[in-house]
Amino acid sequence: MKPTRSRLKKPMAEAVQRYTASIAYDRRLAPYDIAGSIAHARMLGRQGVIPGEDAEAIVAGLEAIGREIAEGAFPFRDDLEDIHMNVEARLAERIGDVAGKLHTGRSRNDQIALDMRLFCKDAAAQVQDGLSRLRKAVLEQAEAHVETVIPGYTHLQRAQPVLLAHHLLAYDEMLARDGERFAGCYGRADVMPLGSGALAGAPYPFDRESVARELGFSRVSSNSMDAVSDRDFVIELHAAAAIAMMHLSRLAEELILWSSTEFGFVELDDAYATGSSLMPQKKNPDVAELARAKTGRVYGHLMGALTVMKALPLAYNRDLQEDKEALFDTVDTLTSTLDIFAAMLGGLRFDPERMRQAATGGHLLATDVADYLVKKGVPFREAHRIVGELVRQADDQGKELGGLTMEEYQRVSPEFDRDVLAIDVSTSIAARSLPGGTAPRQVRQAISEAKRRLSDDG
Amino acid sequence: MKPTRSRLKKPMAEAVQRYTASIAYDRRLAPYDIAGSIAHARMLGRQGVIPGEDAEAIVAGLEAIGREIAEGAFPFRDDLEDIHMNVEARLAERIGDVAGKLHTGRSRNDQIALDMRLFCKDAAAQVQDGLSRLRKAVLEQAEAHVETVIPGYTHLQRAQPVLLAHHLLAYDEMLARDGERFAGCYGRADVMPLGSGALAGAPYPFDRESVARELGFSRVSSNSMDAVSDRDFVIELHAAAAIAMMHLSRLAEELILWSSTEFGFVELDDAYATGSSLMPQKKNPDVAELARAKTGRVYGHLMGALTVMKALPLAYNRDLQEDKEALFDTVDTLTSTLDIFAAMLGGLRFDPERMRQAATGGHLLATDVADYLVKKGVPFREAHRIVGELVRQADDQGKELGGLTMEEYQRVSPEFDRDVLAIDVSTSIAARSLPGGTAPRQVRQAISEAKRRLSDDG
Amino acid sequence: MKPTRSRLKKPMAEAVQRYTASIAYDRRLAPYDIAGSIAHARMLGRQGVIPGEDAEAIVAGLEAIGREIAEGAFPFRDDLEDIHMNVEARLAERIGDVAGKLHTGRSRNDQIALDMRLFCKDAAAQVQDGLSRLRKAVLEQAEAHVETVIPGYTHLQRAQPVLLAHHLLAYDEMLARDGERFAGCYGRADVMPLGSGALAGAPYPFDRESVARELGFSRVSSNSMDAVSDRDFVIELHAAAAIAMMHLSRLAEELILWSSTEFGFVELDDAYATGSSLMPQKKNPDVAELARAKTGRVYGHLMGALTVMKALPLAYNRDLQEDKEALFDTVDTLTSTLDIFAAMLGGLRFDPERMRQAATGGHLLATDVADYLVKKGVPFREAHRIVGELVRQADDQGKELGGLTMEEYQRVSPEFDRDVLAIDVSTSIAARSLPGGTAPRQVRQAISEAKRRLSDDG
Amino acid sequence: MKPTRSRLKKPMAEAVQRYTASIAYDRRLAPYDIAGSIAHARMLGRQGVIPGEDAEAIVAGLEAIGREIAEGAFPFRDDLEDIHMNVEARLAERIGDVAGKLHTGRSRNDQIALDMRLFCKDAAAQVQDGLSRLRKAVLEQAEAHVETVIPGYTHLQRAQPVLLAHHLLAYDEMLARDGERFAGCYGRADVMPLGSGALAGAPYPFDRESVARELGFSRVSSNSMDAVSDRDFVIELHAAAAIAMMHLSRLAEELILWSSTEFGFVELDDAYATGSSLMPQKKNPDVAELARAKTGRVYGHLMGALTVMKALPLAYNRDLQEDKEALFDTVDTLTSTLDIFAAMLGGLRFDPERMRQAATGGHLLATDVADYLVKKGVPFREAHRIVGELVRQADDQGKELGGLTMEEYQRVSPEFDRDVLAIDVSTSIAARSLPGGTAPRQVRQAISEAKRRLSDDG
Repeated sequence: MKPTRSRLKKPMAEAVQRYTASIAYDRRLAPYDIAGSIAHARMLGRQGVIPGEDAEAIVAGLEAIGREIAEGAFPFRDDLEDIHMNVEARLAERIGDVAGKLHTGRSRNDQIALDMRLFCKDAAAQVQDGLSRLRKAVLEQAEAHVETVIPGYTHLQRAQPVLLAHHLLAYDEMLARDGERFAGCYGRADVMPLGSGALAGAPYPFDRESVARELGFSRVSSNSMDAVSDRDFVIELHAAAAIAMMHLSRLAEELILWSSTEFGFVELDDAYATGSSLMPQKKNPDVAELARAKTGRVYGHLMGALTVMKALPLAYNRDLQEDKEALFDTVDTLTSTLDIFAAMLGGLRFDPERMRQAATGGHLLATDVADYLVKKGVPFREAHRIVGELVRQADDQGKELGGLTMEEYQRVSPEFDRDVLAIDVSTSIAARSLPGGTAPRQVRQAISEAKRRLSDDG
Repeated sequence: MKPTRSRLKKPMAEAVQRYTASIAYDRRLAPYDIAGSIAHARMLGRQGVIPGEDAEAIVAGLEAIGREIAEGAFPFRDDLEDIHMNVEARLAERIGDVAGKLHTGRSRNDQIALDMRLFCKDAAAQVQDGLSRLRKAVLEQAEAHVETVIPGYTHLQRAQPVLLAHHLLAYDEMLARDGERFAGCYGRADVMPLGSGALAGAPYPFDRESVARELGFSRVSSNSMDAVSDRDFVIELHAAAAIAMMHLSRLAEELILWSSTEFGFVELDDAYATGSSLMPQKKNPDVAELARAKTGRVYGHLMGALTVMKALPLAYNRDLQEDKEALFDTVDTLTSTLDIFAAMLGGLRFDPERMRQAATGGHLLATDVADYLVKKGVPFREAHRIVGELVRQADDQGKELGGLTMEEYQRVSPEFDRDVLAIDVSTSIAARSLPGGTAPRQVRQAISEAKRRLSDDG
Repeated sequence: MKPTRSRLKKPMAEAVQRYTASIAYDRRLAPYDIAGSIAHARMLGRQGVIPGEDAEAIVAGLEAIGREIAEGAFPFRDDLEDIHMNVEARLAERIGDVAGKLHTGRSRNDQIALDMRLFCKDAAAQVQDGLSRLRKAVLEQAEAHVETVIPGYTHLQRAQPVLLAHHLLAYDEMLARDGERFAGCYGRADVMPLGSGALAGAPYPFDRESVARELGFSRVSSNSMDAVSDRDFVIELHAAAAIAMMHLSRLAEELILWSSTEFGFVELDDAYATGSSLMPQKKNPDVAELARAKTGRVYGHLMGALTVMKALPLAYNRDLQEDKEALFDTVDTLTSTLDIFAAMLGGLRFDPERMRQAATGGHLLATDVADYLVKKGVPFREAHRIVGELVRQADDQGKELGGLTMEEYQRVSPEFDRDVLAIDVSTSIAARSLPGGTAPRQVRQAISEAKRRLSDDG
Repeated sequence: MKPTRSRLKKPMAEAVQRYTASIAYDRRLAPYDIAGSIAHARMLGRQGVIPGEDAEAIVAGLEAIGREIAEGAFPFRDDLEDIHMNVEARLAERIGDVAGKLHTGRSRNDQIALDMRLFCKDAAAQVQDGLSRLRKAVLEQAEAHVETVIPGYTHLQRAQPVLLAHHLLAYDEMLARDGERFAGCYGRADVMPLGSGALAGAPYPFDRESVARELGFSRVSSNSMDAVSDRDFVIELHAAAAIAMMHLSRLAEELILWSSTEFGFVELDDAYATGSSLMPQKKNPDVAELARAKTGRVYGHLMGALTVMKALPLAYNRDLQEDKEALFDTVDTLTSTLDIFAAMLGGLRFDPERMRQAATGGHLLATDVADYLVKKGVPFREAHRIVGELVRQADDQGKELGGLTMEEYQRVSPEFDRDVLAIDVSTSIAARSLPGGTAPRQVRQAISEAKRRLSDDG
């Protein structure tokens, strides 16, 4: 009979065991579980709740088990349900009855809260690393393309020319915000729950602060019922990851578009492309496609986690067990996508000539022509109307706006002078020279600033 | 170099391999993949696209591989990406170059569509079985409790007495509807896509209908681009499963409520209950809690699948690979929950005495008293007002409605006669004798009808 | 005091009234509510539950109220909470106390279930109409482009040439499946719940079948507790709509891509395009963008509806009130998107020349060359390798595959003869002549079949 | 012709107008839009981009329009699409052509980003207020019940006695975390985007910092492309709201449970309860039910917002228009739920006697008995087994654990002494005296701490 079933008269049905066991996935928490148990046992000894030599035996046993697990030699048993009972049972095999003292004043409810919080702190830190590496890769491409022109799009229609570096820096902004959100996640996970017992608190003279210090937490939980039933920190991590994956899906979409024959702005390194089982000519951006799709997985996990928690009465309910698999998958999905994007970005070969050419078609300078008129005192709305008329005339003749003659300009508005013909991609870009604009001076400064910020974050 | 990378000049980066490989989970599709390949090879032979002896060699090789996989002896290789390439590579090891003819006129795009459709048909059928077993268990408890009274609730407030059988039959209705939805899923999955090639159709004289017949499909797909890019059948299965899990979450909630000390209506068999690591007295309904929580998992997968498909241009995109893990998990979650609920339901011990007692408190007969007045010609709204007044008076005296004296009744309305005192739980239930009502006669008939329907569905 | 508060000693707090009132949106159900009440009243009269003249007075009063609402003259009152109480109160104003007899044997629980089912049936039918109109528009464009060639894409890389008609027919397939799903929704909504009372059934000799007939339902509900607590039909409608919006988001994405300067395959009619407040040259596909985005709205409503129903105990809970606004919005979103797409599609101007040109670049015939070798007896895998090599050589020389010389072909494989040079876009398309393939003959037949099916559905 | 359609040759189709117009809901942004325009116009004047008197005329016109809107006198026009064009058109009516200068160097893309950020900052602040008020109400009930005992539950089974105040304080923890998250939202919304133009930055000598200061922003955006395409701040607000609603759904669930006849722990004030249209005796907790259900609405909006943003290429796409309605609804839902809960909580009448009685049943002191043994040196696991055995014996005799005789205790373990009989609810609670535990001393301190923290936050 399991040690938890003291009052039940029958063993668990085999199907129940299968349905309820979590050891298949919560074994991933083993290092955290053992670290937590060691800190707990040491504190039990320090506070005299159990004899010092018992604490030492327990700690030594747990350390040995930790090594066993690290080496892949630990005999995980499904019938022991979860990582906690697996470790405790193994401890009893190793050190005998004294193992039974480890769980003093502790419940699996506060124990799993501890494990999950330790995991989330590590996960948030790992995501931060991944974000930093990707930002570094983005900034390197930006630095390499501080003079490369690309059409800026709105509505996927060419809008105004921008520097490729400026475009790439938009992703640095997104990823930097992701970093802030994960810092928030880290902070709210950074609370030590042991001492909460099953729900009401432990009736022993524990030193909770010392356990927190040993485990690297910055504070202890303030309410035992909240401590065992709170999974905000898990949901928040999913939410931050969902936003980060959304950003990556946007970058993925652009890589897919840009590497299409129609755009032709970039070529993936062959090592980061895939072929087709049927069509011999194909070179496909599968990594970007998968990243785009994996966004769905993370969105789904967020929704799942929110659903689990809806309308649960206090305190611990077994529903909370469902917090783990999705969390692990979200963290693995995000970190692996960050890593492969960082690597893939380095291998992108942009085609500056093709991009510049694209930036000169599609009347991208129409706004500049309107701004020209504004500077001559024409109200903007009137200038917009005038230039719209010019675009229509140019279109009807199959020309670009820049291909109209001086006479054609002046027929629509007498405000035009010869200097209107000087408007080109370079003047357009250079003109946007406010902080945050695409002018080379601003972009260079933005890169410096981004590098400084990245090194602060990293 | 992989056989798909004929034009690429570099091998795939190791990280890309890890990121894109699906063999860790799509190996589950092996039986379907092999069955599809066998049917394809036979057809290639029959139609003279490849020599008959080549077809025979391929079929024999695939059959041997099928056995190898069934026995767990197949050497799955991560570097071969997916189940298709694993099987094909193994076939080449076994039968040599002729293996290279198997993929004639086929792409992984239509091949995976086939595998997924075969899987979904099986999954839908398996869910149907699970639904039938659970409905059987529900009906058995209903039959056992056709005279057991329970308070019917609205807003979790006691509302009117009903038969427990009547309450349970509500779940049979839900599960029967689930069955209908899965039948719809089955029907829309039942379309054979081979012959669609990568997207444009195969340029060979294939006999698609014969492949469909051999594989048990009732029709072939009508448009090759749709055939390789459609995953409606996957999403629909998630949606049907989400609704089914929602139903199970409601039943789970009621089991959790009813087995609380406060309700005390039912006791779980010890084999289906769990204990606590800390509190020796606990007997917890963990199975029901986990089922309730697993609803979130399935909701999440539905959302994930919808997200993946949003705004994908035609035809196949690698994004579609993300359809698998979530689908497998949804199917496993639903079928295992159906199974364990069917088993657990049989072991429930209801406490009819306690339920009847609960049904006599809380003024549950107030509506009957109002209906009594209506039958005397009082407009319903007026009757509602009168009985509301009586309830208030009874409450103020700490009595049940039935505890008021004749005089007290008549003081509020002269329409009351002594026969109002005859209203009790049994008359209340018996009065609701329309089809679909809780009167014993109706409930018995509903059980018969449900059993007949179940045996039709099963 | 409200007529529902007979036993409560205080009026509802004003904030509660605001929080709980639904009249701001459920007034949309007025026609259904009144139709249901008329059928109920007539039946009460027919069955002698209330005097015939009372029934007639009620029916006449309700009809007058119906006209009042249709004319916008009905004085909706927030303090009366919902449509049911608004109508009933107005009825009392018009016909006096006899109005109080209408609610005999009825509860708002079965009444709202009725209203919602009537609404859903109408909504499903309206969606079917919208689907038919859009399919008609798709088929018209397909018929107009049965000889227009377009590159078929996988991974957004050019893959094989297809007919534009073939590409468009893929959407007809999707929309036809949507139609099937909405037919399923209609069927499961088509159940008449009146007679279920609050939850236990009505204690009167009602003729439920006659009410069903009068209201156009094909059957009555079988279990009163299920009848008042079931919202499967709402969720199912959201799910079907989510899939339909997903299809529309794919079409939207393609329209956005195709109308970009880079693709240049199609031009929107100016009446269906928008401009920019700043950039005078812009012509933006905002309709397609909004449709793509509105997918999110419908996905969200599906998730919301599933969340609401999770773990609700039987029978009616006020939570169910949250079923309405999202449903209305889903129906409006889907039907308006279907309508505007049908209109917009008619105005698309494709550029066949540009599409054909695109279909001749990107080595789209590589698979055909491989198939050529297969027909000469080369195993497909070997043929794939050979053509991959050719593509690489062509790429290195900046040529298309078709630009290689006979000598270059033969240097890679001696199997090549001069007839390999005859492979072109037309032969490639014509070769894919299986059912479901892109060959003109098949596509023409597919259009005929689709038109026949549409007229059957319509 | 609309001022944005300068180059288009046809007016917008009427259906397109309806489909794309946002004025029905974005009029809510009017105060922000006008404030932004005023700040922009002033800066245009200050920087000499337009003449000072023009700027003054524009500002005066906008102020007048602001008053018109506040008074409900503004003639909103659907054909003008959105709030921006409505205001600009009205300005032209009021001040003539000079109005056309307002949009200089601005696009609707950066303008709407500004409006949304101003809205989100206000919304976050409003939520903070609502959270504070609810926390105050929670703390008041906690202070009133610092000696009231309630059974603490896990798995909805009675677990250990706790103070009601301790239970309520768990909600203060949740709400305090919500406050932290909304502070994060506020911070990331607090970025001024004007000057970003359509996507590339404005080509005028703007003073962005001064605009930011005037509008109360703490910094300006760093990248124009990110500034017009970022909606992280909207999604984040949905995510924080989803978690907050989840917390409220838990509290709602407990109020529903506690006010059931079975629990009977609390009675709602009649002003916060509802009745039934059919059953005269009902007193229903509809507010709590609706709050529980509205969780679904907010979850859905979060999912919708994430879906909208998935895989959008830079920079602005019309998809972003879909950010508004859901956001408004999320904010309204959360703030109204916070407000009504704060009011409702004050009117709760707890039944301390009934709760204490419940806390003495169900062997709630079993853990204390085990801890008793541990303190005598019995390893915890052994103690758990012993007490489980005692519970079983007590159950078999239909007794509580405390009802066993000394002899019965000692028959199971000789470690028991008479002092075991002194264990009762009060000693159990008092024993849990660590920080975060339920002992009265700790709870009093936790209340003080919470009040201090609340006044810091408020």
